[in-house]
Amino acid sequence: MNSLLSYVTDIEPLDVAWKERAHEYLETLAIPHWSLGVVMDIAKQLAAIQKTLKPTVENKCVILMAGDHGVVEEGVSACKKEVTIEMIDNLSHRGASINALADTVHADVMVVDVGVAVDLDDYVKQGTVIPWKIGYGTRNMKKGPAMTREEAEKSILVGIKAVEKAINEKSAQLIATGDLGIGNTTPSSAILSVMTGQKVADVTGRGTGIDDKRLNNKIKVIEKAIELNKPDPNDPIDVLSKVGGYEIGGIAGVILGCAYYKIPVIVDGLISTAGALIAYGLNCNTVDYMIAGHKSQEPGHNYMWKSLNLKPLLDLGFRLGEGTGAALAMYIVEGAAAVINNVLSYEAAGVTPGA
Amino acid sequence: MNSLLSYVTDIEPLDVAWKERAHEYLETLAIPHWSLGVVMDIAKQLAAIQKTLKPTVENKCVILMAGDHGVVEEGVSACKKEVTIEMIDNLSHRGASINALADTVHADVMVVDVGVAVDLDDYVKQGTVIPWKIGYGTRNMKKGPAMTREEAEKSILVGIKAVEKAINEKSAQLIATGDLGIGNTTPSSAILSVMTGQKVADVTGRGTGIDDKRLNNKIKVIEKAIELNKPDPNDPIDVLSKVGGYEIGGIAGVILGCAYYKIPVIVDGLISTAGALIAYGLNCNTVDYMIAGHKSQEPGHNYMWKSLNLKPLLDLGFRLGEGTGAALAMYIVEGAAAVINNVLSYEAAGVTPGA
Repeated sequence: MNSLLSYVTDIEPLDVAWKERAHEYLETLAIPHWSLGVVMDIAKQLAAIQKTLKPTVENKCVILMAGDHGVVEEGVSACKKEVTIEMIDNLSHRGASINALADTVHADVMVVDVGVAVDLDDYVKQGTVIPWKIGYGTRNMKKGPAMTREEAEKSILVGIKAVEKAINEKSAQLIATGDLGIGNTTPSSAILSVMTGQKVADVTGRGTGIDDKRLNNKIKVIEKAIELNKPDPNDPIDVLSKVGGYEIGGIAGVILGCAYYKIPVIVDGLISTAGALIAYGLNCNTVDYMIAGHKSQEPGHNYMWKSLNLKPLLDLGFRLGEGTGAALAMYIVEGAAAVINNVLSYEAAGVTPGA
Repeated sequence: MNSLLSYVTDIEPLDVAWKERAHEYLETLAIPHWSLGVVMDIAKQLAAIQKTLKPTVENKCVILMAGDHGVVEEGVSACKKEVTIEMIDNLSHRGASINALADTVHADVMVVDVGVAVDLDDYVKQGTVIPWKIGYGTRNMKKGPAMTREEAEKSILVGIKAVEKAINEKSAQLIATGDLGIGNTTPSSAILSVMTGQKVADVTGRGTGIDDKRLNNKIKVIEKAIELNKPDPNDPIDVLSKVGGYEIGGIAGVILGCAYYKIPVIVDGLISTAGALIAYGLNCNTVDYMIAGHKSQEPGHNYMWKSLNLKPLLDLGFRLGEGTGAALAMYIVEGAAAVINNVLSYEAAGVTPGA
């Protein structure tokens, strides 16, 4: 594997000439001017990423990063921390929401242990979990940095390695991010607040469903963690290490890896988009390869999309994670590929252009 | 075939007990309370329509109703009227946007000629068009009723017949509506204005892309047609016959047919939703079987959804018709079926419920 620095610095923006070429080609199809809206935007993006007017997204993969969070001991979550491992078990039996939705769109689900608090040997043996653990859960960020700077960098490299695996073993052409980890809306809201300058109270939500009292506590915990650790918004690795999580680092790595290898990546909910903010902070060209999957119910999520200047494809009231919204959005990307590949031109179809 | 009256009066609302049962069942799954939002609403609707906790939407069909409009001679469209037949030809070669999007979701496309202005014998022989023409285009509604009351009723029966064909020949379990017909945003905006009481100027848009001058003319033509014909908003057949279109009647019939045979129906854009307003006016129980596919760019479309009290699944800036938005929304319905069928319960998965 290369160094993180070499990956980060070698990400190219989309080719302007291919963007223009794709745009012009789409305008020749027997479709009134851009009347398939966002689907045409995506078709253009796919063509420019793959440098072809016949882009394909046949092989799809959801990369789900799992990690635990020391801050759960502060009572920030509605779930006890053991639910992370229970959900790993459910994923291994293909009984989770992401399994149902990924199956429908014929996407593989890769579960990567980047920081779950317990050993997952049984699942690793079964082949249902990839064992790339950086630590047994982060430390409690209210009391100090969630991880070291070295661990933060390692967690990002895990994400890049996962993309390489998806390419080498599954010939992945479209990747969606996913997360699993009780308590992970807490570091995500912290990253969001630090990197966009929004107030913690405005961008902190109920996660799995905490009540008002716990929500107030969650806000205070995040404020305290930021005050204590003083993460530097201009240094994404510093932010990730101090108030982030292993799976958020892994997701940032997935996005960096996709951008590096020129693969479109659908970003899921609050946790995934926290990873996207880290990736974007490391190299703003990454946004050219991102597709905003959906708008979550979490109040902070839209601030993230706005700061990335992306508009989410779906707004279906999701607040689940696991990559569920991103998996559902894969359909739209597949539709966009079908449109640019299969719709005939005005000329070939013998249709008189209107407007 | 039964009489239109017998179809209209025999539509049942969703079974309340099944709605409750589906709701309770969904709450047992290892998903935090309703955290898949609208996807869970749809899963509940599917279960209540099919009266099973394991609903299936395997066989999907887009029913595309085609018709022409006498009012095109008033210069209301950016396209010449021959484009209807050119697009029929493109559909027959599977080169249209709806072919690309329906193929991706493995849906059949049935093209029904309910009122195209020319004979389509060649396509009928090829088996690409179903010949159920009621008339050679409507008459110019600015000068008198678009059709007779009898023709309006017949056009609705064509839609019901199409649903029966989709059930008998394709075992359809999920149907999407689609339209084709140059000029058909004009009658659709007229129906919208009459049936919801909105001002014509507020609900009339650019269709395929007319300029300001033509838009002003289009508004005046619609206002004149309403003033002259005086359609009765409490009599949907009267509205359809005076300021509607054959394909809008056909779409109303598809929706009535789906409701009668208890099949979920995804309603597409402005023209399809005009059909939905007619169907709803005939029997308000039809709305229980409707799924709002998407929000079109046409300014009137959202008024329609509001008057039906439905929230569209997608908002991707479409303004194309053909059933394109509804076909793309089929994916979400398929995802909803996958969730209720395949996600394990908290108990079966061994996951501790959080909130």
